[in-house]
Amino acid sequence: MDKVAVLGLGLIGGSVLLRSVSAQVAARVVGYDADPGTRAAAVERLGPAAVAADLATAVDGADLVVLAVPLPAVPAVLGALRDVGHRGLLTDVTSVKEPVRALVGEGTRFVGGHPMAGKEASGFDAADAELLVGCAWALCLDDETALPDWLDVARWVLAVGGQVAPLTSAEHDAAVARISHLPHLVAASLTAGAAAEPIGAAALGLGAGSFRDATRVAATRAALTAAMCGGNAAALTTEVDAMQARLAEARALLTGEDPIGALTEWLEGPRAIRAEWPPHRVRTELPLTRDALLALGRAGGRLTGIGTDTARATRP
Amino acid sequence: MDKVAVLGLGLIGGSVLLRSVSAQVAARVVGYDADPGTRAAAVERLGPAAVAADLATAVDGADLVVLAVPLPAVPAVLGALRDVGHRGLLTDVTSVKEPVRALVGEGTRFVGGHPMAGKEASGFDAADAELLVGCAWALCLDDETALPDWLDVARWVLAVGGQVAPLTSAEHDAAVARISHLPHLVAASLTAGAAAEPIGAAALGLGAGSFRDATRVAATRAALTAAMCGGNAAALTTEVDAMQARLAEARALLTGEDPIGALTEWLEGPRAIRAEWPPHRVRTELPLTRDALLALGRAGGRLTGIGTDTARATRP
Repeated sequence: MDKVAVLGLGLIGGSVLLRSVSAQVAARVVGYDADPGTRAAAVERLGPAAVAADLATAVDGADLVVLAVPLPAVPAVLGALRDVGHRGLLTDVTSVKEPVRALVGEGTRFVGGHPMAGKEASGFDAADAELLVGCAWALCLDDETALPDWLDVARWVLAVGGQVAPLTSAEHDAAVARISHLPHLVAASLTAGAAAEPIGAAALGLGAGSFRDATRVAATRAALTAAMCGGNAAALTTEVDAMQARLAEARALLTGEDPIGALTEWLEGPRAIRAEWPPHRVRTELPLTRDALLALGRAGGRLTGIGTDTARATRP
Repeated sequence: MDKVAVLGLGLIGGSVLLRSVSAQVAARVVGYDADPGTRAAAVERLGPAAVAADLATAVDGADLVVLAVPLPAVPAVLGALRDVGHRGLLTDVTSVKEPVRALVGEGTRFVGGHPMAGKEASGFDAADAELLVGCAWALCLDDETALPDWLDVARWVLAVGGQVAPLTSAEHDAAVARISHLPHLVAASLTAGAAAEPIGAAALGLGAGSFRDATRVAATRAALTAAMCGGNAAALTTEVDAMQARLAEARALLTGEDPIGALTEWLEGPRAIRAEWPPHRVRTELPLTRDALLALGRAGGRLTGIGTDTARATRP
């Protein structure tokens, strides 16, 4: 690629920019952020050539534009792209995919993406060129996605250091509702429950490893968690219902005749699953067809390299 | 103390024994485990003087007996102590306190305890003399607890490296239901939910930091988690209900008019609590009275040293 533009230089966008520059994924990499302080911080770290003063300059002639703003800001940036007449390939790093897909609409060359990496800290100051290296990067292969566009973005993700998980937008949203958004809601609920009166101070004072880990992500900035969870409301509601059903099962066992025996059986399935996670992966190779790529992603696999007709991958 | 006996040499009992020996908390420290293989492993690590061949020899002449067997084994060991006519001071390290208190019954010099330390691995091989150093160690000060006995056990806990949190058995059980047992049930529920069909393999394949930490304790041996949770069924049921109510709140916000705005507000309270955890502690001093000790524990404080008339402590 000749030019890649990154719009939005928070934790993820900033990390994408840093890594795209250091890995030389294109002849030219340019970032832009609406906040002048963030642009100044990016200039300080990367020099003036890597930071544009306005969005039009950033995307001018770009082969790939990476949308890295929070979900609530996506409509405004899409509008700005239309205003400057940008028609090139577009990807994003937003943590929900169906809402962005709907906002992008038809007639845009768009491939939705989501790198599975993060930390509690946010903003450009927390950005790190290594944050995305080795992470699973969901890349949406929907009915309307042109396969050549998808492969171009996938090659760029690999160059940035990610491993590409091919999924539809709906499959992605259902999966992250389970492994990210629900854990965030649960962490907040556990934290609030521990602190509730009476005995809240004593409980927080006794909290050790299981409380620390179970609630770690509750310290995330509320607006970020709310944008992820609220932006994926439909899928997340389904997972909240499933969680409620499981807790109701556990509650019934707790009040039954033999809580310890019954719970031992109930816990054994999840124990075996978690003990085997993350899954052991084996190398594989697959043709570059829509069906083969989606089958890989649905099996929990990830592309690690793309050739002319086949891709290298790992899968559980 | 002249002699301390530790009954049960799993992860916690083994660690108590190792640390009691290395910190020389008594002229003589002896451990016993019903499993010959565990006794042999303990002899290999500590030498024959620290391991008794039977329970009667272990507790003979002991100033303090430490009960370190899982809850389901407590009745049998209490029976064995009665059979050998042991009448000395008894403490335990079981993760629930009201059920043990009920099993011990009246007429025994008993002070219930619970060190807030652990790891997913279990058994003597995982025991570690440093595991308990600096941990909060709940020590139950109930109506029937003799204060001099409580102070004797508290001094031993301090010698072993723990920091003593004075609470009633009921307060302890309510607190650990929140910060340990509910997180275990939730971790199992999140794991089972993530793996459920359809999309389970893809979800597990995308799981990153928030899934890893939220579900870490789901890998714990099912029988151990079941004994903790099932043994604390009454307090835990209350906390499951509170969790269900909080998730129902979140669900209502998700399906409302402005999920992102409403969730931002809902998440802010837990975010602030978790960002301040673990609490900053200040040093304090208090008289050795029942009321002052319990007030300290209820405020999330811990004894760090015991003098003749006063104790040193830290509290949030």
